[in-house]
Amino acid sequence: MLKRLDNLLEQFNGNNIDAFLINAVPNIRYLTNFTGEDAFLLVASKKLFLIVDSRFTVQAEGEVFEGVEVLEYKAPFINYFKDFLLKEKVHWLGVEKNRMALNLYLSLSSLSFLKIVFLDNVVEDLRIVKDLQEVEKIKKACAISSKSFSETLAVIKEGITERDIASELEYRFKRNGGAKPSFDTIVASGKRGALPHGLASDKKIIPHELIVMDFGVFFDGYASDTTRMVCVGEPTGEEKKVFEVVRKAQEIGRNFVQKGISASEVDMKVRKFIQDEGYGDYFIHGLGHGVGLEIHESPRLNTDSKTILDENMVITVEPGVYLPGKFGIRVEDTMLVGKESSVILTELPHEIYIV
Amino acid sequence: MLKRLDNLLEQFNGNNIDAFLINAVPNIRYLTNFTGEDAFLLVASKKLFLIVDSRFTVQAEGEVFEGVEVLEYKAPFINYFKDFLLKEKVHWLGVEKNRMALNLYLSLSSLSFLKIVFLDNVVEDLRIVKDLQEVEKIKKACAISSKSFSETLAVIKEGITERDIASELEYRFKRNGGAKPSFDTIVASGKRGALPHGLASDKKIIPHELIVMDFGVFFDGYASDTTRMVCVGEPTGEEKKVFEVVRKAQEIGRNFVQKGISASEVDMKVRKFIQDEGYGDYFIHGLGHGVGLEIHESPRLNTDSKTILDENMVITVEPGVYLPGKFGIRVEDTMLVGKESSVILTELPHEIYIV
Repeated sequence: MLKRLDNLLEQFNGNNIDAFLINAVPNIRYLTNFTGEDAFLLVASKKLFLIVDSRFTVQAEGEVFEGVEVLEYKAPFINYFKDFLLKEKVHWLGVEKNRMALNLYLSLSSLSFLKIVFLDNVVEDLRIVKDLQEVEKIKKACAISSKSFSETLAVIKEGITERDIASELEYRFKRNGGAKPSFDTIVASGKRGALPHGLASDKKIIPHELIVMDFGVFFDGYASDTTRMVCVGEPTGEEKKVFEVVRKAQEIGRNFVQKGISASEVDMKVRKFIQDEGYGDYFIHGLGHGVGLEIHESPRLNTDSKTILDENMVITVEPGVYLPGKFGIRVEDTMLVGKESSVILTELPHEIYIV
Repeated sequence: MLKRLDNLLEQFNGNNIDAFLINAVPNIRYLTNFTGEDAFLLVASKKLFLIVDSRFTVQAEGEVFEGVEVLEYKAPFINYFKDFLLKEKVHWLGVEKNRMALNLYLSLSSLSFLKIVFLDNVVEDLRIVKDLQEVEKIKKACAISSKSFSETLAVIKEGITERDIASELEYRFKRNGGAKPSFDTIVASGKRGALPHGLASDKKIIPHELIVMDFGVFFDGYASDTTRMVCVGEPTGEEKKVFEVVRKAQEIGRNFVQKGISASEVDMKVRKFIQDEGYGDYFIHGLGHGVGLEIHESPRLNTDSKTILDENMVITVEPGVYLPGKFGIRVEDTMLVGKESSVILTELPHEIYIV
C-alpha cells in the first residue's frame, strides 16, 4: 500500500508542515488498514504512527500495513501527544479541517510551541479514485446486496411489516458474506415513500402500494448502495407514470456518466429531464455521491459540484420524485466510472418488482 | 417533554448566552424527538428551532415534540444561519464544545457580530438520569436482546463461523422488535477473545474454546448492552478458573452499585478484586459506561470518574480479563441504578453457556 502513502506525502510539498494528524476513522483505515473505530494517525516525514489506546493495541499490531508503527497511549490523549510532538520536533502540524473535533482542536491550540495548519479533504481527495483492490471489494459488496435483495423478494407479501422486510434483507446480507448494512435500510411503503429517508417501520405492506427499498452492505470495509421499487400486485396509473419518469431519468444519468464529464452536468441533465416532465419541484436532493469506505463520500453529484468524473471513481446515480402525502419513487445504482462509459455494479433489473 | 426543555433552560442562567446551538444527533433527539441523522437545533430563550434540509422536513414536522418549530435551510448552512442569528438578535452563542465539528466552529468564528461561548456536556449531563419513558425503552431493548441471545444459542455448534452466529443473533433482534444492533456485534472465540473489540469474523467455532459474545440492540432509539460467555462443550481448567474470577468480580460490582456510591469506587472495588486474584494487568479498560440514546454515554465507571451514582442512571458493569494469545473473558450487564440497590435489565444467567 506504499502507493497510497506516496500519494499522501506528495501533498506535503507546498504545505510546509512537519506532520499531519489524521483522526477520521475511514481515512485512517485507508492509510493503515486498521479497522478499529478509535485511533489517531500521525504522518511525519516518511513515517506513519498509529496511536491507539489499550483496547486496540493487539488488533492494530495484527492489522496495519508494513511501515506503520503502532503506539499505545494512556488517556488523556493530549498529554501523550504533546510529549510525542516535542520528541519528534513537530512545530507545524496539519489537521483535518473537515473532520477534527472542536475539542481536540482547542487542546492542540493551547500548546504554545505548535502552529496548526488547516488541510481540506487531503485523504478524501486521494480516496475519490479507487485502486484495484478497492474496486474488487465494492463489486463484492454490490454483488452481495443484489443477491440478498433478490432472495428477499420471496418474503414480501401483504401484511408483512417494513421492518420485517428489512430484517430479512439484512439477515441475507450477513449470510451472503457481508459485514453489516452500510446504512439504515430504507423500506418505505405508500405515503411513507415520500420521506427520502423513511427507515423501515412497523407499517404493514398493503397491496398496490409502491415500496421504496434503499439498501447497502459493507464487505471488507467497502459499501454498496442500491434503490429499487417493489409492489405487491400492480401499482396504479399515476404511480406507474411517475415511475417511468424516474426510471428514464436514471437511465439518462447512467448513460451520461464517463471520464471527463463534470458531476454537476450529470446532475443538471437528469434534473432538466425531470423538470420537463413536470416533477422538478419534487426532486429534492442531489443526484448522487461517491461510495467507498464511507457510504457518502466524494465526489458529490449535485448542481454545485466542481468534480470532473474520472476513471475508477465509484458513484451513485439516484434521482427521485417525492409527492408528499401520496408516494415516493427513487431508482439508484452504484456505478464504476470508465473511460468511455460506466459500469453498473448493482446489477438488478430496473423495473418495478411486482411480487 | 417540557420537563427536558425546562431542565435545559435552567442551564442558561449564569451562562449569559442568547442562544445555544446543538448539533449532536442524540442530543437533538432527546430534546425534540426528531430521529433523522442530520439537523441543527437552536435553543433561543424559550423557543426551539429544528433546522433541517429538504430531505428531512416532512419527517421532522411529523416527529417533533410540541413547541419545536421546524425550519428548512438550503446549503450552505452557514449562510442561512447567519441571517437567522441576525434576525433573532443572537450575539452570544453557546456551542457544544465536545460535539461540534471544527469546520462549523471556524465558519461561526468568522461572523463578526457573534461571540462564541463553549459549553461542556450540557445536554449529556441532563441525559444521565433517565426519565420513565426512557427507562421503559431501555428495558424493552434489554428484553429483546436477552430473548434473541437465548434463541441464538440453539444454532451455536462446532464449525459455524463467528459471523454466522452474529447474523443469527441480529436477525432475531429485528424479528423480536428491535431496530438495529446498538454496536457491531462481538463474537470472538478462542484466541480472538483476547481482543476486547473482536468483531465477528469468518473464524469457525472449535469445541472447548470460550466464545465472548458482546451484543446489544436499539429499541425506539435506546440501547442495550450485554456480554456473556459461550462454549461448545466444556471449557478447560484454566479458562474455568479465570471465568470464575471475572464472574465474581462482576457480581461484586453489581452488588455495590446504588445511589450515592461514586462511579470510581465501583471501578476500584472490582479492579482490586481482580488484582488480588492475580489478573490486574489483564483488565485493560474501565468497568462500565452509561447507556441510553448512545451505547456509550455518561457516566463513565473508571478510576478517574467524578460521577456519584444516582437513581435512574443506566450503566453497564463489565469487567474483563484478556490473556493475549490465549483467551479473553468478559461478563456484562446493563443496570438500572436504584436507591438502595440496582436492577439487572439484561436478565440472563451469568454462567458459561455450554452448548
